[in-house]
Order: sequence, then C-alpha cells, then structure tokens
Amino acid sequence: MTTPKLRRLVQLLARLPGVGEKTAQRYVLYLLAADPSIARDLGEELSRLHETIRPCDECGNLAEADGQSPLLCQVCRDDRRDPALLCVVGRVQDLLAIERTGTMRGRYFVLGKLLSPLDGVGPESLPIPRLKQKIARDGVRELIVATPPSVDGEATALLLKRELDGVGIPLTRIASGVPHGGDLEFADPITMGRALSGRQRL
Amino acid sequence: MTTPKLRRLVQLLARLPGVGEKTAQRYVLYLLAADPSIARDLGEELSRLHETIRPCDECGNLAEADGQSPLLCQVCRDDRRDPALLCVVGRVQDLLAIERTGTMRGRYFVLGKLLSPLDGVGPESLPIPRLKQKIARDGVRELIVATPPSVDGEATALLLKRELDGVGIPLTRIASGVPHGGDLEFADPITMGRALSGRQRL
Repeated sequence: MTTPKLRRLVQLLARLPGVGEKTAQRYVLYLLAADPSIARDLGEELSRLHETIRPCDECGNLAEADGQSPLLCQVCRDDRRDPALLCVVGRVQDLLAIERTGTMRGRYFVLGKLLSPLDGVGPESLPIPRLKQKIARDGVRELIVATPPSVDGEATALLLKRELDGVGIPLTRIASGVPHGGDLEFADPITMGRALSGRQRL
Repeated sequence: MTTPKLRRLVQLLARLPGVGEKTAQRYVLYLLAADPSIARDLGEELSRLHETIRPCDECGNLAEADGQSPLLCQVCRDDRRDPALLCVVGRVQDLLAIERTGTMRGRYFVLGKLLSPLDGVGPESLPIPRLKQKIARDGVRELIVATPPSVDGEATALLLKRELDGVGIPLTRIASGVPHGGDLEFADPITMGRALSGRQRL
C-alpha cells in the first residue's frame, strides 16, 4: 500500500488467522469504498472488545461484561439448563460448535487448554481443582468429556478419567468415527478404526 | 456466538469480502485470545480510516490526509516520476498491482469505474474531461491504457482511444496473453488468441 498508515492497517489485519497481506489489502480497499460507517462501527467494536467480552466466571465461556459480579455467560444464566449435566471442552470454539447443534441441555466447563507434554502443558496446568469444585457444588450426575479426538484431546480425557475416578459420577466421551456425509473410502485408518470399535447396535 | 455484542462484531466482520460468519468468528476468537493491544490498535485505525485516507486530488490514488490542499498521493508527490508518462487504470487495486512491479516510472490516473452499459455506466460517467485537462497540464507524451483485458476494460480502452483521438498523443495498451508460468494447455481460447495476435519479434 502506498502510505504508512495504510501499511500499518494492512499489517494489523494480516495478523488475523489465515489473512495475508493481499487479503488484508482487499479488506482495506473494500472498507474505503464502502460506507464510512462500516469501518467506524467495526473500529469502535474492536477497540472495546476486551473490555466488553470476558470469560464467564463460572464456566469460561465468553460473557458480556455488564458490571455484575460474578460475571455469568448466557448458558450459565439460563435456568432451563440442567446443571447436573456438565460438558467439558478444551476451547470456547468447541463449546460454540456444540451449542450450534441445539441439543445440549446441560452446562459447560472450558478447560482453556489440553494436556500437551511436548508443549509443556502438564496436568498441573489444567483447572482440575476448579472442575471438581463445580461438580460438587452443582451436583453433576454426568460429565461429558468433549475434548477433541486428537492425541492431546484423548490424553486430556484419560487424565480427567483418572482424576475424577473417586468422584463417583459417570464420565462419557463424545463419539469419534466417520463424519456425516463422509466417504468410507477417504476416511483415515484411525477414524475408520474408531468407527468400527465404537459401533452400536442398530 | 453467545452474546449480542459478539454477534454484532461477527456480523460487521462478515461484511468484509470473502468473509463468512465462521471466518468472522475465528477472527474474534483469535483477537480475544491475543494481546488486547492488537484489537485496540486495529479498532482505532479502522475508526479513523476514512478520515485518514482520501483519494489524491490529482490522480485518485489513495493518499494520507495531512491537512494540505490539494491532497497529493506519494506517487504524485514523487518528483522523480515522469509526468509525461501517464497510466490510466480502472481502480486503485490495479494501480497498486502496477506499482508492485517497480517498473512504472510515470504517474497514474484512476478512472474509478469502467464503461459498463449493462450496469448503467455510460461514457458521461467517466472523468474524461478531467483526464484531458491533466494530459494538457502535465504535457503527457504517452498514455498507457491499463484497464483490464475484460469486456468492460476493453470497451473503456476503445472509448479512451476515440475521445483522445484529437489530443495527438500516442495511446498504448498493456499486453494480454498467457500469464507468466501459465500453461498453454489450460489457457482459454480468448487469452490464447490474444497471445497469438499480440506476438512480437524475438
């Protein structure tokens, strides 16, 4: 871009995931050609983002700061949700993916990270004590472990199983197998193996 | 997303070209996890975008508003550029693409739009009088017509040729043909035809 200010804006936009300099430049040129209110509104929302949005004190989901304490997200505020059904996820993204199904009637607990010894994330880095407290306080009767079916996700699931063994509530694990609409021909051997070993009676 | 503010931000981001709701959500989650200064800086730059960046009064390129009048872009300010060589482009994007080659030693004139009768853009919508003035004032000796080799771009080139016929300066047209690294096998017939008809002595 031809001016220092534009170069700076392009560099800032290019920090977004999957955005390179060309895409960032496309965004800027679009905004310059569009109604000035779009860039202004977007700019104001972004400036305030970290003041407005904070993690829910109860579950770690994204919550809108409204000056109340504790800060609760919309799921934790929803009385129709069953507090006895708790779903443990690694990241907020995973919580959002589960919410999109519209079938989760319980609440969540966001770990924030997965066990990953190679990256220096050991069991002590995970909020297991806080999870245990929540289980006891909310009278949880089923814990759905919805960490991803990856190496770190499975390791985290096994750690939870070991840590919560004495708590005496059933832990369940989300199914792993061939995705909906997926082709058996193109499923990798691990996925196909899981689809087989996780088979259920018709 | 789980809160009204987040939904609004996602909707604003999803107005960017090629950005859907999922990508917008990814951007927001990235910004929330990243250092707060990134979202804040980005927000401030975007809020001020339309105040900071305006079209150059001379050529229509993007220029940084610094309170001076007339507002000149970096190309028009550059004394080493030859004002007698003028390159006409349709959009600022095209100017930037030519600048990236580093081989253009003249100046530009951004039309802002191409002739497009189907979209209601007729000859009177193009800034031809302003272009004629600039040609006379700057003593232009060659006009490079760098509109794209599309239907609208070619129509605009022909219009310029007709309108500037009496001005008495040579008009040149950028070459159209098989792109660098391109495969003849996969070139469309029009491109291949242009590559043939535009052949030059080796």
